[in-house]
Amino acid sequence: MSASVGIVTTQYADFEVELQLESGRLLGPLRLAYETYGTLNADRSNAILVCHAWTGDAHAAGRHSEEDRKAGWWDDMIGPGKVLDTERYFVLCSNVIGSCKGSTGPTSINPRTGKAYNLTFPVVMARDMVRAQKLLLDRLDIPSLLTVIGGSMGAMQALEWGIHYPEVVRSIIPIAGTGRTSPMAIALNALARQAVFNDPLWKKGNYKPEHPPADGLALARAVGHISFLSDTSMHLKFGRKFTATDGLFDFFGRFEIERYLAYNGASFVERFDTNAFLYLAKTLDLYDVAWNFDGLDDALSHLSCPSLWFAFTSDWLYPPGQTEEVVTVLRRLGKPVEYHLIDSDYGHDSFLVEPEKFTPKVVAFLNRLG
Amino acid sequence: MSASVGIVTTQYADFEVELQLESGRLLGPLRLAYETYGTLNADRSNAILVCHAWTGDAHAAGRHSEEDRKAGWWDDMIGPGKVLDTERYFVLCSNVIGSCKGSTGPTSINPRTGKAYNLTFPVVMARDMVRAQKLLLDRLDIPSLLTVIGGSMGAMQALEWGIHYPEVVRSIIPIAGTGRTSPMAIALNALARQAVFNDPLWKKGNYKPEHPPADGLALARAVGHISFLSDTSMHLKFGRKFTATDGLFDFFGRFEIERYLAYNGASFVERFDTNAFLYLAKTLDLYDVAWNFDGLDDALSHLSCPSLWFAFTSDWLYPPGQTEEVVTVLRRLGKPVEYHLIDSDYGHDSFLVEPEKFTPKVVAFLNRLG
Repeated sequence: MSASVGIVTTQYADFEVELQLESGRLLGPLRLAYETYGTLNADRSNAILVCHAWTGDAHAAGRHSEEDRKAGWWDDMIGPGKVLDTERYFVLCSNVIGSCKGSTGPTSINPRTGKAYNLTFPVVMARDMVRAQKLLLDRLDIPSLLTVIGGSMGAMQALEWGIHYPEVVRSIIPIAGTGRTSPMAIALNALARQAVFNDPLWKKGNYKPEHPPADGLALARAVGHISFLSDTSMHLKFGRKFTATDGLFDFFGRFEIERYLAYNGASFVERFDTNAFLYLAKTLDLYDVAWNFDGLDDALSHLSCPSLWFAFTSDWLYPPGQTEEVVTVLRRLGKPVEYHLIDSDYGHDSFLVEPEKFTPKVVAFLNRLG
Repeated sequence: MSASVGIVTTQYADFEVELQLESGRLLGPLRLAYETYGTLNADRSNAILVCHAWTGDAHAAGRHSEEDRKAGWWDDMIGPGKVLDTERYFVLCSNVIGSCKGSTGPTSINPRTGKAYNLTFPVVMARDMVRAQKLLLDRLDIPSLLTVIGGSMGAMQALEWGIHYPEVVRSIIPIAGTGRTSPMAIALNALARQAVFNDPLWKKGNYKPEHPPADGLALARAVGHISFLSDTSMHLKFGRKFTATDGLFDFFGRFEIERYLAYNGASFVERFDTNAFLYLAKTLDLYDVAWNFDGLDDALSHLSCPSLWFAFTSDWLYPPGQTEEVVTVLRRLGKPVEYHLIDSDYGHDSFLVEPEKFTPKVVAFLNRLG
């Protein structure tokens, strides 16, 4: 059966640049964390870029050591004989700017001040993330990408790649994406933000890394977590089960779903920085493919490569209608586009939980590309 | 056209009882705040009980003074010539126990200690609320109810009335209700709870009334607020509009939906008690019509009166499927049941925002009852 890419190491690329951001601000120097799997072929034509979601990182596949208990976040998808077959493709994944997983973000030291950026870090758009990734592609001397694939915030990056680098990108595969973030998604992020702002330990972003606003971030994560699930998936996993050790009529008694959210929120604090979480929420909120274009038609007219889209029936964060809005315009513009609505109970997270429901179509699409 | 019930006054009834709650705890003495509109007829057969939702109160119609800027919460529905026609019906609405709007709740003084209950208040179920309302009915010498009508938590009470007082209730009209609260709804309430728990001013419920945990409660309210709306209603009202005075790339820049949620949350703090909010959230979470029965069929077999149900297409807090689950069993049991799925964009709040979409069916139903 399909195997693992084995032991992998995160690499780092430093760039002595001043990247001009959509906001007009300059950001630099830049560091990007990345991992690669498989081998670049002789004519450098087999590269695939994987773009991660909100709290993802460069570690998409394999393990960092023999003792590593957990594989990369899309290990189901990437490896020898897998969908993104590392015996055929050279797969690249890089941590986005604004994050805290090795690439330049709010926790990085601002060379001008010698201190962490914290809230002096600029707000970045998905377009800026892609622009930074292009620096890495050039550094690695990769002239073209067979495809750019990603879910959620990864789908936004895939679409930005297709529109802004048509000479580089030969196809895109946006999964559980949106053309522009809806007020509902923004409202949920607003809750997450406020949860952190309310925590006195946040100190306007100037907390010590060893004393993060843990309660606020855990609650913020719980907001996100709920939006990634669905009513049905919660029913399947928790139903109305009450925590065995708590009393049903105790004020502090909890249902299992509540205990799970608290547990998950607390463990998230161990692995993610609060300010980076907030900056990336902002990136998601600001996402609009039509930004700086004359509307959606104008933006999408710049996409020339084939695109393959997936949405999930139970996704209420970026519901199928939002993908369909984009697909409809692409079709009207006569662009080569393929769209599948996948029946899944796992909400927005379906792209991570049930990849087998859409991967056969990814394989066929990649094979047709040649 | 339809007119107002005019100036009304909230009344209070005190009961020297010890009400046995579902939890086994005793609660008493009890005070209930209530309002009435219209006149009880000679044979005392024209009474209608209106049950309010989470943050509602006894003030369902009319104004408290000539200067009162705002009418009662269901003034659209109650008045001369309106759906609940006060020229025909005697309409009664009472504040639930556990609330903070005049009925006994966590802010009330515990006569045994001379201090506010705060977290020593018992957790109450919807069934307990109804049991307390029955005391009021007896006090007012109302032997039967033409109907019990309410939305959301009010729908829960209507159903409990029908099941537990079949000799009193001649029909029920549950709107935007559920037979049991889903894990999704519980998860959202868990966020609201945690928002308050995280606020240092909460002090485990022992805050001074004049120094409530305002930030925590405002955030908790915002969670609820989002769950009452829908993606579509937010699109219609806010779209992706950015607050005019904020910079798009400012870290603290806000979309209009975000500003609105913050504003609404802050004003909510002025009008509602934090502990009462938490206790009622608990009531909602614990709701299960089958509680202490042998399942849903057994519980619903006790309903003998006709029931009229409404659910709303865009309600994702108590989605139509949850009402349909109950209606399906009632039909199978051969109960007289009428159900309408109402097409509305206003989410759970549709019962307050677009009553005209379902009220003609209420009028016809009441007329058929005679």
